[in-house]
Amino acid sequence: MSDVALIGTGITRFGKALTIPLRALVEEAVTGALADAGVDAGDLQAAFCGNAIAGLITGQEMVRGQVALRSMGIQGIPVVNVENACATASTALHLACTAVASGQYDLVLVVGAEKMTHEDRRRPVLAVASALDVEADVDLDSPSPFMDVYAAKVREYLAHSEATVEDLARVVVKAQRLGALNPKAQYGGEVTVEQVLADPVISDPLTRSMCSPIGDGAAAVVVASVERAKALGIPQPVQVLASVLQSGSAPGSRDPAGVRSARLAYEHAGLGPEDLDVVELHDAAASSELTRYESLQLCGAGEGARLIRDGTTDLGGMLPVNTGGGLLARGHPIGATGSAQVVELCDQLRGRSGARQVAGARIALADNGGGWVGGDSAAECVHILAT
Amino acid sequence: MSDVALIGTGITRFGKALTIPLRALVEEAVTGALADAGVDAGDLQAAFCGNAIAGLITGQEMVRGQVALRSMGIQGIPVVNVENACATASTALHLACTAVASGQYDLVLVVGAEKMTHEDRRRPVLAVASALDVEADVDLDSPSPFMDVYAAKVREYLAHSEATVEDLARVVVKAQRLGALNPKAQYGGEVTVEQVLADPVISDPLTRSMCSPIGDGAAAVVVASVERAKALGIPQPVQVLASVLQSGSAPGSRDPAGVRSARLAYEHAGLGPEDLDVVELHDAAASSELTRYESLQLCGAGEGARLIRDGTTDLGGMLPVNTGGGLLARGHPIGATGSAQVVELCDQLRGRSGARQVAGARIALADNGGGWVGGDSAAECVHILAT
Repeated sequence: MSDVALIGTGITRFGKALTIPLRALVEEAVTGALADAGVDAGDLQAAFCGNAIAGLITGQEMVRGQVALRSMGIQGIPVVNVENACATASTALHLACTAVASGQYDLVLVVGAEKMTHEDRRRPVLAVASALDVEADVDLDSPSPFMDVYAAKVREYLAHSEATVEDLARVVVKAQRLGALNPKAQYGGEVTVEQVLADPVISDPLTRSMCSPIGDGAAAVVVASVERAKALGIPQPVQVLASVLQSGSAPGSRDPAGVRSARLAYEHAGLGPEDLDVVELHDAAASSELTRYESLQLCGAGEGARLIRDGTTDLGGMLPVNTGGGLLARGHPIGATGSAQVVELCDQLRGRSGARQVAGARIALADNGGGWVGGDSAAECVHILAT
Repeated sequence: MSDVALIGTGITRFGKALTIPLRALVEEAVTGALADAGVDAGDLQAAFCGNAIAGLITGQEMVRGQVALRSMGIQGIPVVNVENACATASTALHLACTAVASGQYDLVLVVGAEKMTHEDRRRPVLAVASALDVEADVDLDSPSPFMDVYAAKVREYLAHSEATVEDLARVVVKAQRLGALNPKAQYGGEVTVEQVLADPVISDPLTRSMCSPIGDGAAAVVVASVERAKALGIPQPVQVLASVLQSGSAPGSRDPAGVRSARLAYEHAGLGPEDLDVVELHDAAASSELTRYESLQLCGAGEGARLIRDGTTDLGGMLPVNTGGGLLARGHPIGATGSAQVVELCDQLRGRSGARQVAGARIALADNGGGWVGGDSAAECVHILAT
């Protein structure tokens, strides 16, 4: 896939924006991405629009992309509305990359956007729970049905690894510290392990700050063929070395989607975890950061805690992870997260990350998971990017 | 796109099935399509799943495809959930065809499925209205906000063409007569122009039988490369000559999505309307059949009524349209309609249509529209198929 380039990115500030409509978030992110790429809305050949829960939050169940894009004059071209739970925007990016790689288009838009804030604060919690099989697996009486899934996985992980709840808190401490360096992040600041552990419990052992917050936001990426990027005179295109989408394995499989998608991405890119300079991964709960260190082969099985304890994945470490604060601090407007990760990595690869810049970053990986069906992720997307 | 073939189809009976879950509809259609193609679920390389309103009907807002497919052992492979209002399933087919044409996959599944029936009969009506811009254009007090859009278009069409309300009724008479020949159709039977006109008015001048009904159903298609189809020994693959997706033009444009998508499809296929043997078009309201005769260039502007009056588009006429009863009689479970049209056309091209067979059908066109945003269709898909 070395013929696909990311040539412009845009992102809103993530946070709680009760009165800002979804289309305004989309407009801000897309306007930024187009300006960054130096292309006009009228130059776009197709748009892949990711949104997960507007149907339940705003009532716009259908044609979400067309409704949001029309104010910007993005019309006439093919528009596809894509959903894959929390991996929605990276699935949209995957479709865009494969379409450009095939020669079908050479300039397309990807936008992921989500509004989660609602006057009824229970509504987004139940909407997020629909990333499970709602007829089989959702406990409507739970404070957070989806975090119950993470909590069950955490408990098993803690029992079978060297990790402790203090390690989960260390992930939060890192996320919040890095989030403070990201002007687009929902949260960020100095917290201690003790403070994180003292937070109210959402689903044992996950405390509130170990769970990604409710929030709103949008992030957009302009995808082009390398040839088109050259013709446009893009000074710093980011090459897409791999774009992998997978769904979950059958129960009991030893090859879950997270492991399989990473393995395929390394194969497609022709490199390994040792080649990475910076990573964005799906820390919807703090524990996910540790387990994803393992599924991405950044360490061996059960060894995830070591990387957070010894600073390997902190800014300044060997392999900084979630430099923008991750889902825990940047925030997790679910349909926007996949593209927000890529915006962060493009900034890193283009040397635009300011106080959180990873010096000399050349190879980056984004890992975005979505939903939980039949004992595995419903969707897993891994992208490997390079300058 | 002559390297893409449709090698198996499956469809449920369309109708009101309050107690049958969405996943059971998907399972029936997919099982039928796999059996027809002679391939196993485990052979599939990807799945493109279309559903429009499950979020508002069943609460399964996310990962609808993964939830529905897991019971059949369809796991591990890339699964993409696609939505484009009433053009949802044909958008999924478009993605599948372009992915196969590019060489990314050579055996993929497309399934469109919808449950519209609900104990609260108002709920599907309001869900369908979300194919409009819900913040700008939906009158919640209307008996059918979406049919109001069609009714406004009908009134303008009647004022600027030779068509009359009797012609709208003639469309219904044909649809119901052909629907009676289709064992999968929701409705069908002999009705008269007078009976249609005497029906209760939904949105003036559209009477109830001029509006497609609420219903449930699913339709699936197995898409393969021509090479893979040959290797599988498929006796009657259907070739995809064109697969076009477009969105609406800006207000006031003289090139609306329906006209543009048809023109592009003819260009891509290298043929014209005079080459068609059988057509499925999007008669969500009876008037759409007449206006789509025109946008598909089956006749000149304002001449649509002539084709229904003189029997051109009836079974036995020069160019039979909606042989399975169309959306008016086969039914319109909105996320399933695009694939149901293709199932009907594959049956015609493979000589499997029994009492409604079009003798010697070789070239077929499916035209599927979705949503209404900013004065034009939000999505339009046209596929041209051939044996």
